[in-house]
Amino acid sequence: MTGTTGATAHGVHSEVGRLRKVLVCRPGLAHERLTPTNSDDLLFDDVMWVEAAQRDHADFVEKLTSRGVEVVELHDLLAETMAIPAARAWLLDRLLVPNRVGLGLVDGTRAYLESLAPHELARFLIGGLSTADMPQDYLTGYVSLARESPDAREYLLPPLPNTLYTRDTTCWIYGGLTLNPLYWPARKDETLLMTAIYSFHPGYKDSTIWWGDPEVDWAQASLEGGDVMPVGDGVVLVGMSERTSRQAISQFAKALFDAGAARQVVVAGMPRLRAAMHLDTVFTFADRDLVTVHPQIVDGIHPYVLYPSDRSPGIEVVDARGKSFVDVVAEAMGLPRLRVVETAGDLYASERQQWDSGNNAVALEPGVVFTYDRNTLTNAALRRAGVEVIEIVGAELGRGRGGGHCMTCPIVRDPLD
Amino acid sequence: MTGTTGATAHGVHSEVGRLRKVLVCRPGLAHERLTPTNSDDLLFDDVMWVEAAQRDHADFVEKLTSRGVEVVELHDLLAETMAIPAARAWLLDRLLVPNRVGLGLVDGTRAYLESLAPHELARFLIGGLSTADMPQDYLTGYVSLARESPDAREYLLPPLPNTLYTRDTTCWIYGGLTLNPLYWPARKDETLLMTAIYSFHPGYKDSTIWWGDPEVDWAQASLEGGDVMPVGDGVVLVGMSERTSRQAISQFAKALFDAGAARQVVVAGMPRLRAAMHLDTVFTFADRDLVTVHPQIVDGIHPYVLYPSDRSPGIEVVDARGKSFVDVVAEAMGLPRLRVVETAGDLYASERQQWDSGNNAVALEPGVVFTYDRNTLTNAALRRAGVEVIEIVGAELGRGRGGGHCMTCPIVRDPLD
Amino acid sequence: MTGTTGATAHGVHSEVGRLRKVLVCRPGLAHERLTPTNSDDLLFDDVMWVEAAQRDHADFVEKLTSRGVEVVELHDLLAETMAIPAARAWLLDRLLVPNRVGLGLVDGTRAYLESLAPHELARFLIGGLSTADMPQDYLTGYVSLARESPDAREYLLPPLPNTLYTRDTTCWIYGGLTLNPLYWPARKDETLLMTAIYSFHPGYKDSTIWWGDPEVDWAQASLEGGDVMPVGDGVVLVGMSERTSRQAISQFAKALFDAGAARQVVVAGMPRLRAAMHLDTVFTFADRDLVTVHPQIVDGIHPYVLYPSDRSPGIEVVDARGKSFVDVVAEAMGLPRLRVVETAGDLYASERQQWDSGNNAVALEPGVVFTYDRNTLTNAALRRAGVEVIEIVGAELGRGRGGGHCMTCPIVRDPLD
Amino acid sequence: MTGTTGATAHGVHSEVGRLRKVLVCRPGLAHERLTPTNSDDLLFDDVMWVEAAQRDHADFVEKLTSRGVEVVELHDLLAETMAIPAARAWLLDRLLVPNRVGLGLVDGTRAYLESLAPHELARFLIGGLSTADMPQDYLTGYVSLARESPDAREYLLPPLPNTLYTRDTTCWIYGGLTLNPLYWPARKDETLLMTAIYSFHPGYKDSTIWWGDPEVDWAQASLEGGDVMPVGDGVVLVGMSERTSRQAISQFAKALFDAGAARQVVVAGMPRLRAAMHLDTVFTFADRDLVTVHPQIVDGIHPYVLYPSDRSPGIEVVDARGKSFVDVVAEAMGLPRLRVVETAGDLYASERQQWDSGNNAVALEPGVVFTYDRNTLTNAALRRAGVEVIEIVGAELGRGRGGGHCMTCPIVRDPLD
Repeated sequence: MTGTTGATAHGVHSEVGRLRKVLVCRPGLAHERLTPTNSDDLLFDDVMWVEAAQRDHADFVEKLTSRGVEVVELHDLLAETMAIPAARAWLLDRLLVPNRVGLGLVDGTRAYLESLAPHELARFLIGGLSTADMPQDYLTGYVSLARESPDAREYLLPPLPNTLYTRDTTCWIYGGLTLNPLYWPARKDETLLMTAIYSFHPGYKDSTIWWGDPEVDWAQASLEGGDVMPVGDGVVLVGMSERTSRQAISQFAKALFDAGAARQVVVAGMPRLRAAMHLDTVFTFADRDLVTVHPQIVDGIHPYVLYPSDRSPGIEVVDARGKSFVDVVAEAMGLPRLRVVETAGDLYASERQQWDSGNNAVALEPGVVFTYDRNTLTNAALRRAGVEVIEIVGAELGRGRGGGHCMTCPIVRDPLD
Repeated sequence: MTGTTGATAHGVHSEVGRLRKVLVCRPGLAHERLTPTNSDDLLFDDVMWVEAAQRDHADFVEKLTSRGVEVVELHDLLAETMAIPAARAWLLDRLLVPNRVGLGLVDGTRAYLESLAPHELARFLIGGLSTADMPQDYLTGYVSLARESPDAREYLLPPLPNTLYTRDTTCWIYGGLTLNPLYWPARKDETLLMTAIYSFHPGYKDSTIWWGDPEVDWAQASLEGGDVMPVGDGVVLVGMSERTSRQAISQFAKALFDAGAARQVVVAGMPRLRAAMHLDTVFTFADRDLVTVHPQIVDGIHPYVLYPSDRSPGIEVVDARGKSFVDVVAEAMGLPRLRVVETAGDLYASERQQWDSGNNAVALEPGVVFTYDRNTLTNAALRRAGVEVIEIVGAELGRGRGGGHCMTCPIVRDPLD
Repeated sequence: MTGTTGATAHGVHSEVGRLRKVLVCRPGLAHERLTPTNSDDLLFDDVMWVEAAQRDHADFVEKLTSRGVEVVELHDLLAETMAIPAARAWLLDRLLVPNRVGLGLVDGTRAYLESLAPHELARFLIGGLSTADMPQDYLTGYVSLARESPDAREYLLPPLPNTLYTRDTTCWIYGGLTLNPLYWPARKDETLLMTAIYSFHPGYKDSTIWWGDPEVDWAQASLEGGDVMPVGDGVVLVGMSERTSRQAISQFAKALFDAGAARQVVVAGMPRLRAAMHLDTVFTFADRDLVTVHPQIVDGIHPYVLYPSDRSPGIEVVDARGKSFVDVVAEAMGLPRLRVVETAGDLYASERQQWDSGNNAVALEPGVVFTYDRNTLTNAALRRAGVEVIEIVGAELGRGRGGGHCMTCPIVRDPLD
Repeated sequence: MTGTTGATAHGVHSEVGRLRKVLVCRPGLAHERLTPTNSDDLLFDDVMWVEAAQRDHADFVEKLTSRGVEVVELHDLLAETMAIPAARAWLLDRLLVPNRVGLGLVDGTRAYLESLAPHELARFLIGGLSTADMPQDYLTGYVSLARESPDAREYLLPPLPNTLYTRDTTCWIYGGLTLNPLYWPARKDETLLMTAIYSFHPGYKDSTIWWGDPEVDWAQASLEGGDVMPVGDGVVLVGMSERTSRQAISQFAKALFDAGAARQVVVAGMPRLRAAMHLDTVFTFADRDLVTVHPQIVDGIHPYVLYPSDRSPGIEVVDARGKSFVDVVAEAMGLPRLRVVETAGDLYASERQQWDSGNNAVALEPGVVFTYDRNTLTNAALRRAGVEVIEIVGAELGRGRGGGHCMTCPIVRDPLD
């Protein structure tokens, strides 16, 4: 597992073409910070047994690697980046400011972090740094306010447990990528870390950025990769959901159109439900023309199609209300129809499987997907449809409500032929 | 009620000296947007009968006016400001951007707002603008995404019902003021509106700003006026609460010290409780040496004192753990002791009265305060202590959990002699 | 206001015929027990200013009385009942048992309550009795467990603030009544109090009971009067809601059919929403053929009609899925159609008005109704439809989410001619 | 695994003496009913992968068996009981009544259940019976109401997933047992099933019942076995918690005293916290004089001691406020002191481990306990204290917040010598 490959060939040209390189993030210090008290704020439904999650994640990585996928890991990439003095300065300049660390604690925190080896620094950047982690010499009297301060403000750097879901923070879309403004304050810093990597790491720094900048105030514009699918041939699907807003989608679409990176964006107007957090929680691809869907939610999607336009502001919105989302996607992809595998089981089992990320498959190549082991009925249905299903142990990893699709950010994926 | 007075004599020199000029905001369109579905997100516990709230608010204003206080009102001030072309341009440039309004809707929205008279514009700036408010001619096809978008994103400008609580957004502290970074996203735009007024309105534009800038990303630094009390003689009390963070307090204190505006900041480290939202929900002044407190919470306050320091970063933190907050305040004010009126009644009544803003008194002058009518027991206790209590009808106004102190932002208040 | 009228003519023969006698319950001690901490458990959304609620309730009673309605009040009726030694013994035997009061506290509590005058006893029976209310002489060492016990278990008798909504506990349906098994544990004791009255009070004790017995374990069978409407001519409407279950409805219908008290029960299968708590929160009558409805919910009602049957178990269920509930009701009442006044205002106002009991009208006579003052738009719409609307002050009374219909239990109402 | 042993030697004489026979309940149909929508009502924090839970439970049983413990299983015991016609009639007479099943569905449901083999019947009694489970021939038109009815009322018999925690429903205390009135309505039927077994099963029917009767209305009296510990020598510990009330504790103590079964009951007045659900979630025994405790909660326990008394009502309450609970227990057990192993790890880890049932150990014999594998730090601390720790896989089993102590109801356990 290493992050040193050149950026030359990076690009994601489909949802199910051969996966060649992928970014993941192993569970760690950030998850050791989760408690019953703070897990809601950190967007986890329950605490996690971190050692077991690490073992299951390593097993997932091993399965990817053994099938020929190059896997890069976020702690590693960030450590490699932090070994570059300019990158370290760029990132710490932005993180170690009075608005975050608190007046009187900036210098000591900086001195401590500067003293650390790159891997140790990356561990705290992702896992959070609390006042209790700092050796006594680096602390000043100002820390007494921090130790008493309500909520999680005793942190000098906040823990980022949702880095586990690398899918959301950046999206490779054909030959370039987006640096996404995430919805929840608890996740915004993830984009800053990724930007350091894409700005300084030799293997990544020359990438084309379609859209996104972590130093801008995005206000009501937010977009997460779990809602984004470059399905091939210049078509991109985007869920308009709790976490991905129309303010972001329209700018994202225009940026892709302006760069010639896409010719059509299909928007899935999601119903307002916790279970419908992202498009990929209810709809993913398992083969060229095969999707797994949760019909109770997908049937309620309101589809739109966005096209480039000569007239300002450069995009045209076609309201496809009344059409089935699955049909609109098939049409956009030039397919006569999509085959559909629904979340399996009776009313109870189906709701349970969707909740346990049963529709959150990620493809290795056409007809081969990774899913959680616990979705036994949906996995069996996929197999009956001719799909090879490789299972990931989901007991711990799924507690933030994300599956294989969420935990992977493809960096190189082939087009469909 | 007018906002045209000159800025010359503005300044707040105590918590109970004669109140001469105050800013309020009458209930209106923003409160007509409150529903059982969205009220939590907008920080209200219940919907409000707006006409009745307006009547009760007008009665409060009348009582202030008839006792010689000059009352200025936010819609009026903002309308006067919006009549100034440069001010209108400054504010609309910041509000009508794709990240807020959405691509394709910026021009139409701007054209519509530019067509409005200043008062009508101010009404939408505070009350919010939904796609349904826009005449058909100003809309484009892009609105179809907005109408379907989850949550309150059908808004082009969000409603700001918490403007009712003018106390929080700006604080006059002795001869200057702060433009506060508020805690909840639902309130951040309030500071932008106030900044337009303090930047352009002839009666306000030459004010001294100690600290704050709505165009900066304050990250974990947030401060709300309900936590701030300039008690006189260079002393300022600040609650460190859910909404006011150490990251803000330390910078705020340093800014005051650097400007010579304060010589001591007493920090009240509040327990983590919804009922302890702001310091002024559990502790306010009713006379020179008399406070009303909710002992169940105030007894749990951890006090600190901040002083200027010659050494970087310019403030010194003295941890007063173990001392009573009320005693620390008395000492800072140079008083032998403070007389205390506790929230009255048995266990039930006391909890009810605090909840109904029973400790949220605002003083007209030493020994004369405004409180809600419904806190009958605490009001009686204040009267027994020799305080003149003037009652405000609280049935509707109190539903956002704020009383007279929260609803007033003093602009001119005399020092104690 | 007195409870001494003879039972001879009692009976409710319609929803809008002349109201002649009605039971209400004034706010009191039970509402003084409500705090922010316990209000959820006691089914109130907020605490209440009890004195103001009492004033508004007295005004409602005065308006009823001045329009010729005989009003009886629950504290009065219960006090008159408690003056009868056998009634007092019956009720205290059931309430003062170890399972409720706790071993070691039964005798002292009984001795104290026996020492009280009837009105004082009634006040505690409705308002609750806490260990702090008991004079020291009546207490034993066992009270130390009670004072420490979690939750509201320091009560020896629980407060019953929902007695304010007399509609729910008993229903007069034509010439007899039901003693309803209520849904929430916090309300079950209300039925016991009413049973004491209907068993012993000379003005009520010979009433015909169609159904219900507070000493039976009703398990999943629960029924509340807010879901019950005897619309005339042997037809009864019943909401199947959160609080009124099919297990109760079927037995209730059979009991009415067996007694010849009804010939048809129309069931409104309500959607699962908090706002759809009872049928009368979204649908009430304002005139012979005029209803006020909240269409967002009423349009989702699934109607059924129950008829007597010769075959066991004595009722027949006709599923009217696909028909409009309003049409099914019109047909059952032999009307060509019902005129409908919808909750008025735009999307926001309509949701607000329904929440504020805007559809919870109670009729004085055909075309004359009581509603809350705050529902100005719906009141105006009713007036435009020719209805005389008499307003009740709702600022405090509405905080348990009930209006005029909920606060009244008609005892004598004329049939429609 | 069988339930046919004679009742002769049943009895639990300590918390850590040799465990010889124990009742468990394997996960099954009831857990397949859990969904994200209903899990809160059924007291589970998340849905469960049932096959994996069954595997992990079987492994736990195997570990018990291989260490010489006789394990009986609830489905088996209930099936053996249901093979007895009088037992089947007794139970179905109580469950299949209109108040539960609904009028018109009683006969069909009874006919269907009577047609089933004992194991199949036991499966539905524990797992719940929905209208969808019933073959069409047994259904009548009345089912249409059931299918539409809100909430989980489509059930004819409710699912009982908390049977997994056999500890709570019945308690062997020295030579007899209690049939506990459980706190939540969702669990009350569990006691009825256990009563059928203890009334009819040849291996259990002659047991001595100290207290409890599922056919009584217990009102505010509730008691759960997770709060009960017969520590030996006539001493019993009881947590006074959310789920175990003073009304039950005082009657329970008196019943034990009257029968000569105990000489002292030590009451742990628990703080009001979700994490402090039962005493055994924060305090269990691992050896004769060794306990594992969660100090953040145990330090807040208010201890009392109850003794028999000659005076009515037969118990005396000694308030031990101010003493440490652990010291009071040591004194009651005649020990100089108890050794204490605290939940291990830093602030985060400790809160996580307690949440994951880290203090919920069950002893095989002195110094040998079962705990969840995920509590690695606390397990290590126990081992350092000389305890042999046998691990149970907790990924699925722990999702209802119960560990090894909760999942076992000892039937035979030796006294400490």
